[in-house]
Amino acid sequence: MFTVEILCIGNELLSGITVNTNAHWISYQLTQAGGIVKRITVVGDDVSEISSAVKESIARRPEWLIVSGGLGPTHDDKTLLGVAIGIGVDLVLDKNAAEMLKKSYARRSKIYELNDIRLKMAKIPRDSTPIQNPVGTAPSVIICGTHDRANIVCLPGVPKEMEAIFLESILPEIKKTVGEFYVVESSFEVIGVSEAMLAPVLSKIIESNTLDRNYIKTHPLEYSSDNKPRLRVQIIAKGNDKHEVETRHNTVSCIIVQEIRMLKGKIISKR
Amino acid sequence: MFTVEILCIGNELLSGITVNTNAHWISYQLTQAGGIVKRITVVGDDVSEISSAVKESIARRPEWLIVSGGLGPTHDDKTLLGVAIGIGVDLVLDKNAAEMLKKSYARRSKIYELNDIRLKMAKIPRDSTPIQNPVGTAPSVIICGTHDRANIVCLPGVPKEMEAIFLESILPEIKKTVGEFYVVESSFEVIGVSEAMLAPVLSKIIESNTLDRNYIKTHPLEYSSDNKPRLRVQIIAKGNDKHEVETRHNTVSCIIVQEIRMLKGKIISKR
Repeated sequence: MFTVEILCIGNELLSGITVNTNAHWISYQLTQAGGIVKRITVVGDDVSEISSAVKESIARRPEWLIVSGGLGPTHDDKTLLGVAIGIGVDLVLDKNAAEMLKKSYARRSKIYELNDIRLKMAKIPRDSTPIQNPVGTAPSVIICGTHDRANIVCLPGVPKEMEAIFLESILPEIKKTVGEFYVVESSFEVIGVSEAMLAPVLSKIIESNTLDRNYIKTHPLEYSSDNKPRLRVQIIAKGNDKHEVETRHNTVSCIIVQEIRMLKGKIISKR
Repeated sequence: MFTVEILCIGNELLSGITVNTNAHWISYQLTQAGGIVKRITVVGDDVSEISSAVKESIARRPEWLIVSGGLGPTHDDKTLLGVAIGIGVDLVLDKNAAEMLKKSYARRSKIYELNDIRLKMAKIPRDSTPIQNPVGTAPSVIICGTHDRANIVCLPGVPKEMEAIFLESILPEIKKTVGEFYVVESSFEVIGVSEAMLAPVLSKIIESNTLDRNYIKTHPLEYSSDNKPRLRVQIIAKGNDKHEVETRHNTVSCIIVQEIRMLKGKIISKR
C-alpha cells in the first residue's frame, strides 16, 4: 500500500460553484489500487497559496501528491508556477510539451493556432515530464520523486480530461509500484440500531490487531417514519491476496450481522 | 468581508465513498454571506491528523474555522478531542450539552436512553458553547475566537443535521459580524471562443483596480460536435451596496459580451 495526498486548485471549488467531484473520483481510483489518501486540500487560483500547500504536503511525506486544476492558458491558471516554487525549481519552456500542444491544436480547426498565450501551457517545472492530453489541450506533468520527496502529478481540472490522462498514463505507473491489490466491499442498511448501540462491537473489532486492513464505518441516516434509527454499515477489506481478503471480509461481516440480530435490528438492504 | 477555512473530517471522504457535498454547501452559504473561503482541508478520523489540521489552519489566521464531521458516539468520532488538542485545551463533560442530549433522546422512542457511550457527545472543549441539534443527537459546538485565533464551529457530518444547525444557529451569528451583503451573479455558455482567446480581455479587467470584488471565471466545456470550443463564463460581483454591486456587475458583463461578439463567438444560453 502507499500514501497519497490530493491537492485541488480552483476558486470555484472554494465558493460553492463547483462540487469537488475530482477529489472524489481520484481518491476512489487510488483507494481501489491500494492507496491510502491521507489528506485532500483545496486552495484558490493563487501562486502563494498553491506553493504553500505543495510545501506543506511534501513535508508530510506522502509517496504521491496528485494535483488537479489550473493547467490552462488563462490568467487564473497558476498551478505549474505554484508547484515549481513549492519544490524550488523554475519553469522552463519544454520542447516536448510544445509539440504536444501543437498536436492538440492540430486536432482542432485551423483557426485555433498555437500562440504565445497558449504556449504558456508548455512552460513546466524543470526536470518534469509532460504527458499528452488526449481530450483537451493542456499537457499534464509528472515530477519524479526524490528520496525525500513525493512523486508529483499535475492533472487538468476538467473532469473528462483529468480522468482520461489519469487512467491512461498515471494509474498504470502507480500500479507498477504496488502490484496486484484487492478490495472487497459490502454495505447494508439497518433499521432499529443506532451508531451508539453498535459502537462497542465495532471498537472490539478495530482494536483486535488482525484487522489492520479492514475498514468499517457506520453512517447514520435519517430516522424512519416510526422514529427508529437508520444506519448504513460499510465493511471494506483490502490486501494483496485475493482469497485472504475475501475470508477476512466475510469474518468481519458475520460478526457485525450477528450483533445487529442480537440488538433486534432489521437488515433491509444489502449489496 | 471575512476569511474562512473549512475542515471536513471522515475516512469516507478520503476513500472515494462519499462526495464532499458538505464543503460545497458550506462554502456556498459563506460566500453568499460575504465570506472568502481560503482553504478546504479533508483529513481522516484520526486525532493527530485532526489536531494538526486545526493547528495549521488557525496559524493561517482565518476569522472563522468551520469543522464538519466526527461528532457522533462511535469509535471513529474524534473531532472534539482533535480540536481540543489543536487549540490546547482539554475536553470536559458539559452539563448543558448533556441536557441537550437528553432532550434529543426524549424525542426518540424510550429504548434509546442516554448511556455512557452516548454521553461521550457531551464532552466538549473547555470554554466552548454547545448548540442543540434539532435533527439528530450530537450537539454542535462554538468556540469563540481570541484576538489571534479564529472562531471555531464544529458541525455534524450528516448533511441534514449540519445544514439545520448551520442555518438556525451559525449563519445568523456570522451575519451579525458582517451586515448586509449582496452577490449578483450571471453565467452564459459560448460556442466558438476558447479560454485562450478570451484571456487577454479578462486579464485587463482583473488588472484594473476598480474590480476588487468581482469574480470572473471561464470553464472550458467539451468541444461541440463540429469541433468548436465551448466555454461557460461566470461573472460574480459582491459588495455591501446593492445598487453599486448591480452596476458593477453589468459593466463587466457588457465588456465581456462585446469581446465575445468581436471574436465571433455565439452566446447560446444565459442566466
